[in-house]
Amino acid sequence: MERIKPHTLSGFMELLPGEQALMDRITDTVRRVYGLYGFTALDTPLIESSDVLLAKGGGETEKQIYRFRKSDSDLSLRFDLTVPLAKYVALNYSKLTFPFRRYQIGKVYRGERPQRGRFREFYQADIDVIGDGSLDIMNEAEVPSIIYRVFTELGLHKFVIRVNNRKILNGFYDMLGLSGKSGDIMRTVDKLEKIGPEKVKAILRGDFGIPEDAANQILDFMAIRGANDEVLESLAGYLGKNETFDRGFTELKTVVMYLKAFGVPEDHFAVDLTIARGLDYYTGTVYETQMTDHPEVGSICSGGRYDDLAGYYTDRALPGVGISIGLTRLFFILSDCGLLNTDLPTAPADVLILPMTEDRAFAVEAATKFREGGVRTQIYSENKKFKAKMAYANRLGVPFAVLLGEDEIREGRVSLKDMTTGSQELLTVKEAVRRVTEAAAVRRAAAPVRE
Amino acid sequence: MERIKPHTLSGFMELLPGEQALMDRITDTVRRVYGLYGFTALDTPLIESSDVLLAKGGGETEKQIYRFRKSDSDLSLRFDLTVPLAKYVALNYSKLTFPFRRYQIGKVYRGERPQRGRFREFYQADIDVIGDGSLDIMNEAEVPSIIYRVFTELGLHKFVIRVNNRKILNGFYDMLGLSGKSGDIMRTVDKLEKIGPEKVKAILRGDFGIPEDAANQILDFMAIRGANDEVLESLAGYLGKNETFDRGFTELKTVVMYLKAFGVPEDHFAVDLTIARGLDYYTGTVYETQMTDHPEVGSICSGGRYDDLAGYYTDRALPGVGISIGLTRLFFILSDCGLLNTDLPTAPADVLILPMTEDRAFAVEAATKFREGGVRTQIYSENKKFKAKMAYANRLGVPFAVLLGEDEIREGRVSLKDMTTGSQELLTVKEAVRRVTEAAAVRRAAAPVRE
Repeated sequence: MERIKPHTLSGFMELLPGEQALMDRITDTVRRVYGLYGFTALDTPLIESSDVLLAKGGGETEKQIYRFRKSDSDLSLRFDLTVPLAKYVALNYSKLTFPFRRYQIGKVYRGERPQRGRFREFYQADIDVIGDGSLDIMNEAEVPSIIYRVFTELGLHKFVIRVNNRKILNGFYDMLGLSGKSGDIMRTVDKLEKIGPEKVKAILRGDFGIPEDAANQILDFMAIRGANDEVLESLAGYLGKNETFDRGFTELKTVVMYLKAFGVPEDHFAVDLTIARGLDYYTGTVYETQMTDHPEVGSICSGGRYDDLAGYYTDRALPGVGISIGLTRLFFILSDCGLLNTDLPTAPADVLILPMTEDRAFAVEAATKFREGGVRTQIYSENKKFKAKMAYANRLGVPFAVLLGEDEIREGRVSLKDMTTGSQELLTVKEAVRRVTEAAAVRRAAAPVRE
Repeated sequence: MERIKPHTLSGFMELLPGEQALMDRITDTVRRVYGLYGFTALDTPLIESSDVLLAKGGGETEKQIYRFRKSDSDLSLRFDLTVPLAKYVALNYSKLTFPFRRYQIGKVYRGERPQRGRFREFYQADIDVIGDGSLDIMNEAEVPSIIYRVFTELGLHKFVIRVNNRKILNGFYDMLGLSGKSGDIMRTVDKLEKIGPEKVKAILRGDFGIPEDAANQILDFMAIRGANDEVLESLAGYLGKNETFDRGFTELKTVVMYLKAFGVPEDHFAVDLTIARGLDYYTGTVYETQMTDHPEVGSICSGGRYDDLAGYYTDRALPGVGISIGLTRLFFILSDCGLLNTDLPTAPADVLILPMTEDRAFAVEAATKFREGGVRTQIYSENKKFKAKMAYANRLGVPFAVLLGEDEIREGRVSLKDMTTGSQELLTVKEAVRRVTEAAAVRRAAAPVRE
């Protein structure tokens, strides 16, 4: 037979079982926490009609899209979860209840150039709250507070959610008579951390013809630092000159107040005037999330407030706020930074039953009882020597083995072997179930991230 | 702005929130039960290199494939989860532990002609056990016993898992001197239920030139009916004439014995000589699952034993046994037959907090406590009249609303309103958490299927 060399496409993450178990723990935590805040789960197709997916048109993203024909249809793979959400909400408007809170965890596709840590297929985990005509600002604080909880429950603690408001930036540039250039300025200022103020100034002056004085004022503005209340106090000095700025200031102050109320500690969020998010559709609060010890990886969770979710499909005003975790990239980063808790048990079973006799009826019976007790149980089915059976248990990494020989069958009990300590005890199945369940609960309480 | 009419592609299931919650309940049950039997979770890319995915080549499936180019790559969307598994096992052979037990729940793609109940994107939920060189037959009974448990826990009880063994069929046709035609015969006999014995005989005679006597013997054989032990007894009458038949008989008898041991009641599995499964790669035990009251929908879960999982990628012998539930189709069928438990609570939250004062600090605090108590909680954030707030609670279908006015804030308590009975009580948050948690547990215990 002619053989094909098996391979997986580059840019596509495919994990080994132990890694996958860790990834699943992370995904499950995200799902559980999202659910805890009253979001409904959505699942939309990975393929959409190209006219729907590309309604917005546009630039870089469009080049990366997986687009193809099947029969007579022009199809595309989704490149984010926001456009499908916009379509869904516009399509089902009359059947939904607003504010509509949905989360979606799913794969998206971007044909980026293959590069370390860049993926062509990756999971996004999004939450969005969509209002019908209007949406209260409290949501703009609740959404990042959910992210705070997600990361904390994952075991990740060294991070800061940076918060800004686009109205403040737009208002400020308007004060300087630069409102037509605010997009260019934001994209330039975004590089501050990477290239430093001198180079940012040079670009503002040279590329965009910003006057010396205005460029200095921009850099002074971006240099505002300090505790959140201090930054707000500095910003208050600009009040009264521009309506948009003033509105942005009030919003930011309100978001900061509610962030505290939602239990996000002061050292986990920072008002940061330098962040703006590239996407045009953000209109107010914006977020980025930085890993404190790893600024080099960039933002691990971003989002913001928008006024018009679905303008390409409907004339209804659907403002919202959303945030997205790139789970595949996050997993890669955590692994790369050595932050995954590799001690976390990832065996597919809590108990491996090893029948030592030819008749395996008792093994099957015991397995059924373990499973009825909620214990993830595997029967080792192969007719191998004892040594091979134990080697299998070790390779699988199961915390417990159950040995069933003539003696155990006669007594109707099981020998429970703790694979970590090597100790062995003769117990009733009921006792063994309790023992294994308690141990599993302890192990499962450990977080998938260890800083 | 030019508007695009939002639409979802035909043949792609996209559910409303309540339906999605039911679908998720079903998927979660499948995942949990699969996990209980010690299977490792896998997640492989939806896109594979076409040379890998189509290594086997072949017929009908190939025509349905979503295949396209991106840059210089020839890519295809997976059309099942078995080929990706074969690739994965061949690729990672040295890093896996055998028997390798994996489950995978994921979307697959087939460009079938649009038709009611046919999907182009659909979920499969597969389990497979792969041996290295050999695999004990006990697995061939355990796998359908897992399916029994899955369906039972879903609340589906009126089903029968039909079991046969290809060796019995091949051996029997060999006895008749028809081994070269066994594929044709199996495909024809497969239509017995639909077209009846007369037409089957006509096809066997006319299309395949099977002699009258042999055709009669085939029909007699397929007419063997009765309780499982009766069918086995009838089959025993053919023993001693063909080695393959005899081996198949022993296997089937062993599988029947273990099915009982694994707790599958006699009325939920049936030895059925008419089933064969179309796919060539099955070599022994085969399964189909029929809904007793709805034979018209065909098999809702099928699979079997194969000797060579990954022959297109590796020269290692990797025998296995697997079974697959088409979840999207199952959901469609359950819905279509009116078997979904639409009384199951599908609201995204257990509690909706309705702040009645301008200051929402207490609402946020209460929400945080509910969530810390594990209660899925939403705060209604919009500044609307009381009536609008209650209407929202009703539309969302939350079981409880929490009303927070001046009185509650002063007393540091919450008014918990049972949305079903309309009764309302002033409680501490802790008491309310307990009340809501107990009620949620009762509701969640209900099964998603109701026959």
